[in-house]
Amino acid sequence: MTIVLDGKTLAQKISEQVTKDVSKLKAEHNITPCLAVVLVGEDPASKIYVSRKKRQAVATGMLSKEITLPETTSKKQLLKEISLLNADPNVHGILVQLPLPKHIDTAQIIEAIDPRKDVDGFHPVNSGRLFSGVNSALVPCTPRGCVTLVKNHRGQDLTGLLAIVIGCSNIVGKPMAQLLLQEKATVIMAHSKTQDLPTLCRKADILVVAVGVPGLVKADWVKEGATVIDVGINRINNPEGGSCIVGDVDYVGVSSVAGAITPVPGGVGPMTIVSLLQNTYAAAVNQIYG
Amino acid sequence: MTIVLDGKTLAQKISEQVTKDVSKLKAEHNITPCLAVVLVGEDPASKIYVSRKKRQAVATGMLSKEITLPETTSKKQLLKEISLLNADPNVHGILVQLPLPKHIDTAQIIEAIDPRKDVDGFHPVNSGRLFSGVNSALVPCTPRGCVTLVKNHRGQDLTGLLAIVIGCSNIVGKPMAQLLLQEKATVIMAHSKTQDLPTLCRKADILVVAVGVPGLVKADWVKEGATVIDVGINRINNPEGGSCIVGDVDYVGVSSVAGAITPVPGGVGPMTIVSLLQNTYAAAVNQIYG
Repeated sequence: MTIVLDGKTLAQKISEQVTKDVSKLKAEHNITPCLAVVLVGEDPASKIYVSRKKRQAVATGMLSKEITLPETTSKKQLLKEISLLNADPNVHGILVQLPLPKHIDTAQIIEAIDPRKDVDGFHPVNSGRLFSGVNSALVPCTPRGCVTLVKNHRGQDLTGLLAIVIGCSNIVGKPMAQLLLQEKATVIMAHSKTQDLPTLCRKADILVVAVGVPGLVKADWVKEGATVIDVGINRINNPEGGSCIVGDVDYVGVSSVAGAITPVPGGVGPMTIVSLLQNTYAAAVNQIYG
Repeated sequence: MTIVLDGKTLAQKISEQVTKDVSKLKAEHNITPCLAVVLVGEDPASKIYVSRKKRQAVATGMLSKEITLPETTSKKQLLKEISLLNADPNVHGILVQLPLPKHIDTAQIIEAIDPRKDVDGFHPVNSGRLFSGVNSALVPCTPRGCVTLVKNHRGQDLTGLLAIVIGCSNIVGKPMAQLLLQEKATVIMAHSKTQDLPTLCRKADILVVAVGVPGLVKADWVKEGATVIDVGINRINNPEGGSCIVGDVDYVGVSSVAGAITPVPGGVGPMTIVSLLQNTYAAAVNQIYG
């Protein structure tokens, strides 16, 4: 019997805890964590993401600040906005929604954010701290959410389990591999150049798939009882018209083999957003006590 | 026929190239790269390492500056020395010899070094850049040397090869895994909690061993023709008296199976030091042009 890893319900539970923490911080320090979200341009998907993050932050009692800038914003103007947010003691978390317009150097913008306010965890200081196993790192939201989901299912101790991470992006795969390594799992970092990927996958106790290829992972790639985390979000056209969202895992097929699997949507997605709230709360606490 | 990966000869060749580069930099910019080495306390092994690094830097025409401080040096005093070196435009590379006395917080000292001068590549900004695949990262010397050795033997393209890194320290194993991933290898990060390590090892085209366990890796752990990089430096007592240095690999046994193997000593060790010289030269160039 395969267990469906219900990210929505777990995220809701964590969100309730964050709400309590926020309310306590308010009572004890008269400080309300504030998340600033910067949106440059008119990308419709980005707009949806930003409004979702904002809404959920507010739902936990946090403050939210949105800075909306036109597509034509120069790098210099954006750096100026960030430096104002860095200097503002009432702002605890800063998130610049990606992707940025092509004329702006994303790496430079990320490096301009105060690492203590970098709630996306993309600043080199935070990735360096994650890499070195320093506790104070702000960890990218999607991998943080995936690990929370895995540990909620398998228990806190992942020691010696074999995990494979397929897809090695800076924002998902690489930090995911580091987090699993911190949990003392053995970790395989696989990608599009990996030879005989199905055979490697079949050995894994934990599979994390983040490649953006609909239905890549098939039933015969998966060991009986494995935990399968599907980070993919792919919109595909239905044969009978319309479109739908699917992951990187052949959900129906793999469900017959896996011990547990995340649905898409409703698995990793909600965990990503709630991780952002946890990061924002942690950033606020660090700025108060640090 | 197993090839012995002679790190000493390759390091010598690279050192000659660094000598030429240093001389050119002097002629064109009237600037001589300078490596400052900070030694706190009286650890005999540390003293040997420091004098070796200094001697080899000077041999390429670089300048070398040694700051020797007593065991009782306070964290504050050490931070002060580092800030002087950070501010000194004639110093291009700063290396604080580890381990530091126990009363000093190593992480804090490393974070105090200007990342542009951090020739050990231990600052979170450098590990973060390495992690993100940013070219400007200063990469830790031992893994840099290992990759140079592997590519010198196998050719520049490691795409799709299966590499296993045993031992996941911040200064060797983790950066090693990132470098191999950048080369598009599939990378397994293994360690003391890994289950059935011999079976995993037998699949690997490249084995990097950095655990500090004499002779851990045996012949039957190694795939025919694999490239074996032994980072271990272990002093063991001879049965007939005296002591000798051995690696983490059973050299004689594994030599009968591997395609290529590093000797200990004379394999990774010399590559580590020459990588430090390359880092110091690169840091100087970055400070001139950056």
